[in-house]
Amino acid sequence: MQRQDAALLARAVELATRGPAADANPRVGAVVLASDGTVAGEGWHEGAGTPHAEVMALRASGERARGGTAYVSLEPCAHQGRTPPCVDALRTAGVARVVYAAPDANPDARGGAARLSDLGVEVSGPVPGTGAEELNEHWAFSVRHERPFVTWKVGATLDGRVAAADGTSRWITGAASRADVHRRRASAGAILVGTGTVLADDPALTVRDSADRPADRQPVRVVMGERDVPAAARVRGPGDLWHARTRDPAVVLKTLHDRQIRHLWLEGGPVVAAAFLSAGLVDEVLVYLAPTLLGAGPSLVASLGVPTLAAAHHLELLDVERLDQDVRLRLRPRPVEGVR
Amino acid sequence: MQRQDAALLARAVELATRGPAADANPRVGAVVLASDGTVAGEGWHEGAGTPHAEVMALRASGERARGGTAYVSLEPCAHQGRTPPCVDALRTAGVARVVYAAPDANPDARGGAARLSDLGVEVSGPVPGTGAEELNEHWAFSVRHERPFVTWKVGATLDGRVAAADGTSRWITGAASRADVHRRRASAGAILVGTGTVLADDPALTVRDSADRPADRQPVRVVMGERDVPAAARVRGPGDLWHARTRDPAVVLKTLHDRQIRHLWLEGGPVVAAAFLSAGLVDEVLVYLAPTLLGAGPSLVASLGVPTLAAAHHLELLDVERLDQDVRLRLRPRPVEGVR
Repeated sequence: MQRQDAALLARAVELATRGPAADANPRVGAVVLASDGTVAGEGWHEGAGTPHAEVMALRASGERARGGTAYVSLEPCAHQGRTPPCVDALRTAGVARVVYAAPDANPDARGGAARLSDLGVEVSGPVPGTGAEELNEHWAFSVRHERPFVTWKVGATLDGRVAAADGTSRWITGAASRADVHRRRASAGAILVGTGTVLADDPALTVRDSADRPADRQPVRVVMGERDVPAAARVRGPGDLWHARTRDPAVVLKTLHDRQIRHLWLEGGPVVAAAFLSAGLVDEVLVYLAPTLLGAGPSLVASLGVPTLAAAHHLELLDVERLDQDVRLRLRPRPVEGVR
Repeated sequence: MQRQDAALLARAVELATRGPAADANPRVGAVVLASDGTVAGEGWHEGAGTPHAEVMALRASGERARGGTAYVSLEPCAHQGRTPPCVDALRTAGVARVVYAAPDANPDARGGAARLSDLGVEVSGPVPGTGAEELNEHWAFSVRHERPFVTWKVGATLDGRVAAADGTSRWITGAASRADVHRRRASAGAILVGTGTVLADDPALTVRDSADRPADRQPVRVVMGERDVPAAARVRGPGDLWHARTRDPAVVLKTLHDRQIRHLWLEGGPVVAAAFLSAGLVDEVLVYLAPTLLGAGPSLVASLGVPTLAAAHHLELLDVERLDQDVRLRLRPRPVEGVR
């Protein structure tokens, strides 16, 4: 691969980030280079139901795509979905060469590179290290595991309390932690809490922007549990709400996957967190610890059925970051028990 | 102050570190420069009951001290303690000038600089930024507050558990955390646990070196509480043991201060920690968090009598450090409540 190829793939990845993070589809960007070596057109995918990045870039390029090279952050699709296969569009436009960064994780869409070769188009890829894969890791996870990637987020005191003895919990963590949470959960397709949290805290579960206004796109709100959600609950405000009247996380994830949710943001409380953890259905843990001690009140996770230390749930620490007076720990489950 | 003065004070501070950290007396180092500008002698204080650093350096210098300059990391003492005042020794040796780094925090010993001036010796000091004060901060604290500086150390899971439901607690944190704890508590004059911890965990409370051998000097072991310490308890092994049959931390600290303990290392458990915290008698908190979840078991601190979030104990986060898979948070109490 030439230096120019790397630069143009990097541009394609940059364009991809303009797409919505919390979408059913992956984020993809594309650049078409005309045969004279100038950029003919650029494009990116705006989300499910809209044209793919390649098509956008080809439209912008017009006749200048003929004999040119297309740089795409993801392997062009070979299947008929809501839109026609991109490999056909590239071929029809007369593109002579395609360079792509990430391989397609979707088994239905895969085979685009091989198909292009068969059609007589020169193909290079996948090209690792471009950042294209990281852009769509939740999507790729959901394709491989047939369920959304699950992030469990919890804010607690140093002694692991999520509320005081009287139930008060606003705010345990500081403003910097809350801003970090809003920024991160904005990219989730859905937010889930238990009925216990709805009854105790009455959260709105909306994503707010840096100016503390509701963001344009709101995740689907999911309340899990068998109790009723009060008619006046804030979670019933404008936007999608799904009350999953079950205690089975796998059932909830199956439904969310069918609804093309790629990333579920789990906010608790302790009983819901324990249910997901016990079922092995948490993929990432974000613990925000405030420098406070309560000495009483509910713990961040309810009983996991762990009787003795040797049976503890072990996680792997990924990173630690100080957020003003709070500390954020990011962890993930350990594939094998007891390897510390 | 000249550049040479700074270098020689730095040397005095370096010499001071050779003394014992966990001593009744501060660590002090001294360098005597002869009138010809060459080093005549060096010395440091080896601990309570042995000669002061100035005396050691003067002995090493002999007649070469006459007309020379003494560099001392701490203001020379003016009082008769277990040893005669250093100001007299300096005067007798004919030292013409004294440069010292840290002012003496001890009101009984203070006044050394003024006394030297009265005796016709040129005096410079205190000189900030040499590190001399940091060397003896626990000693200085105990002089000011008339009690030992208290470090509360606790190792817990992410959900704030110090043991599993069946009481097992060995080991919650990893080897890197345990090594950090041994290194830090080696400088404490005493280690305290409650009778509950003795009965549950039967700790030896010894300090071990990097090769996991018992260190030469062992802190005084203190067990606090009204229950009996079993005859076979490991804490009854060789070395000092004091069973404080009380629940009052202030009474225990008073006795430890009378015994010239400058730094108390509090290892818990939850009831003892709560007693010290509630009494406002914790000066530093070290929390070692392991990346595990238990979902049940005793919390790191027992009831603090906090009914609601607004009454939480607020600490100030000093630093965060990753220790392999664990995280260490170092905190101190906030002087004013609710300033977050």
